[in-house]
Amino acid sequence: MPQWKEFHPPQRLLLGPGPASIDQRVLQAMSSPVLGYLDPAFLRCMDDIQEMLRHVFETKNTVTLTLPGTGTSGMQCTLANLIQSGDEVVVCVNGYFSNRICDLVERSEGKAIRVDFEWGQPIDMDRVASVLKSSRADIVAMVHAETSTGMRQPIEKLRDLLAVRDVVLLVDAVTSLGGLPVGIDRNGIDACYSCSQKAIGAPPGLAPVTFSDKAMQKIRARRTVCRDFYLDITLLEKYWGKERVYHHTAPTSMHYAIREALRLVCEEGLEARWKRHEQNSRMLQAGLEAMGLAMLVAPEHRLWTLNSVRVPAGVEEARVRTRLLEEHSIEIGAGLGPLKGRIWRIGLMGAVSTRENVLLLLETLEKVLAAEGFKAGSGMKAAEAASH
Amino acid sequence: MPQWKEFHPPQRLLLGPGPASIDQRVLQAMSSPVLGYLDPAFLRCMDDIQEMLRHVFETKNTVTLTLPGTGTSGMQCTLANLIQSGDEVVVCVNGYFSNRICDLVERSEGKAIRVDFEWGQPIDMDRVASVLKSSRADIVAMVHAETSTGMRQPIEKLRDLLAVRDVVLLVDAVTSLGGLPVGIDRNGIDACYSCSQKAIGAPPGLAPVTFSDKAMQKIRARRTVCRDFYLDITLLEKYWGKERVYHHTAPTSMHYAIREALRLVCEEGLEARWKRHEQNSRMLQAGLEAMGLAMLVAPEHRLWTLNSVRVPAGVEEARVRTRLLEEHSIEIGAGLGPLKGRIWRIGLMGAVSTRENVLLLLETLEKVLAAEGFKAGSGMKAAEAASH
Repeated sequence: MPQWKEFHPPQRLLLGPGPASIDQRVLQAMSSPVLGYLDPAFLRCMDDIQEMLRHVFETKNTVTLTLPGTGTSGMQCTLANLIQSGDEVVVCVNGYFSNRICDLVERSEGKAIRVDFEWGQPIDMDRVASVLKSSRADIVAMVHAETSTGMRQPIEKLRDLLAVRDVVLLVDAVTSLGGLPVGIDRNGIDACYSCSQKAIGAPPGLAPVTFSDKAMQKIRARRTVCRDFYLDITLLEKYWGKERVYHHTAPTSMHYAIREALRLVCEEGLEARWKRHEQNSRMLQAGLEAMGLAMLVAPEHRLWTLNSVRVPAGVEEARVRTRLLEEHSIEIGAGLGPLKGRIWRIGLMGAVSTRENVLLLLETLEKVLAAEGFKAGSGMKAAEAASH
Repeated sequence: MPQWKEFHPPQRLLLGPGPASIDQRVLQAMSSPVLGYLDPAFLRCMDDIQEMLRHVFETKNTVTLTLPGTGTSGMQCTLANLIQSGDEVVVCVNGYFSNRICDLVERSEGKAIRVDFEWGQPIDMDRVASVLKSSRADIVAMVHAETSTGMRQPIEKLRDLLAVRDVVLLVDAVTSLGGLPVGIDRNGIDACYSCSQKAIGAPPGLAPVTFSDKAMQKIRARRTVCRDFYLDITLLEKYWGKERVYHHTAPTSMHYAIREALRLVCEEGLEARWKRHEQNSRMLQAGLEAMGLAMLVAPEHRLWTLNSVRVPAGVEEARVRTRLLEEHSIEIGAGLGPLKGRIWRIGLMGAVSTRENVLLLLETLEKVLAAEGFKAGSGMKAAEAASH
């Protein structure tokens, strides 16, 4: 048996699709001693998380909590609980994660009715409405912020579908929650999931979810039990609610982390936080464009949390990322699926969305691109100008 | 919006069914900066975890990894992957968690063939063999260490069932792994899951699992896709294996924690660690019996990690636990199901399994019982004697 040494992770600046580098206060919170899952002090911590999550989701939903799993567990939880065998679900598909939703619908014994659009292109809600009309679907699923493309879909248009039929609206807010408004109640969203490690600013490992009364009524009226015991929301709500019925041993340290991360969100204020994400994203985009690079997504549909930029002709995508990581300890993301090798994904989420990081990234990327034989213009001035 | 204060959890001595209080080194590991889920340094951390887990599971199984969820996700992962619609599974039931296995078998579209025994009583393998013979089952599930009763089932007898038929042997080692031998390969176990927060000594949030080649062959031969995408082991192994295919964003800080916890296990040595758990458990049992209390489980079947003791007549179970927690900051566990109100569950797992904690618990319990009107004898001397 070899002897393992202590693990000292290198200090990276994480500007990829997540996890993002997080505030020292959040890291510190995890070194607090663990508590039992029914300790009154721990239950108060859970109550605080729920109350702050409702604020961030902009909802009054009682069933608002964190799942003991990553963002993907949020996707599975909403779908596995809402879908019964044979149910049709209309899925708006324009990226990797909306495509994954279709897979999970089928695994949940549902039938995914895909409405496909080009990756990085907005969803035409008229087409969705017409597909919905000709289906028996009572659920429509959409990704608010596509992590694979950096595309922002107007969430406020989803409720127009209610004119077609009184469907359940399901939204993936993995890359938006905490970085741009989701307005769950205002936008009539019935089920929504996110993750802990992006704009919320905690480490990966938890999935915030919220279910409207309408969604919970649908779930409570199931003819068959949810196949997913671990993510059965009717069991989870009994632990998070007044009954405090044991279901699983809550991930104590992760709860400490997200409580502190949410506290930072609340201290900053939602509006100010959204504004910060918007400004720094605009600054980065202006800089990248001034360098001669092209963004993947049209300006009015760009996310503020994740910016996808096309790899210029003649540049080897992976080499640039590797040099950024190895020579400058900066992580950015690669493309997924059909965009593999064709884009970089630059995240500005939570604590790393700062003016300084934007300038550092632009300067470093310019240097690396030059070393790779691509003469980029300077993005610094355009970025500075865009920041005012 | 109220302002939330910093959360300062009280310093508890966690002597319940888990989480157990953990070593400062493990808490400290979590305050390291997060890394991307494909960062070479992070992948090395995952490799280390795999190698150390194989050592602790006593296996050479390639598919040995941690799931991004709590122990319950381990139960679900093994069952949801191994069971196909209509499959029969023989389940040995003598406690809360073996009962839960039956629920999950049914949710996985299988048919649970229960072989029931009284809670806290050992499983008669002859009866199991005869039930297996008369069934079509190709999986037998058993709990090694029943967290609800403190009962240890001889794991080495399970393989005798292979004489009946070449079944897949599935074992719940949630409360044993790291505290007593599981000997996966030696005992012919094909699928096993555990948790991070008990004898392994990390916070809750991860589930170590291991699958034999035989189990993986069964899974790869499925006619239908596993309904559980989040815990689909064929996708998880592609992220933990050489391919490094994205499936979910790994819970970075929890990986740091379990790596450090496993490092502590390896530093101590498995044999020494088992011995420590055994000695301290025997010491506690001797002390409790000298106090006039009765253990639930027969001596030869008692776990070394979790000790269940009957609540003496006339004593209000919950009051004693509350006083221990509120007046002495010591947590012990309550009974579950039919044992609710009838037993206390005292855990000595990982870092808290020490001679000092045994003596402290005995002394404090004696004091609290006296205050509640029950005159217990002193357990200290008997405990001291048993420790030599």
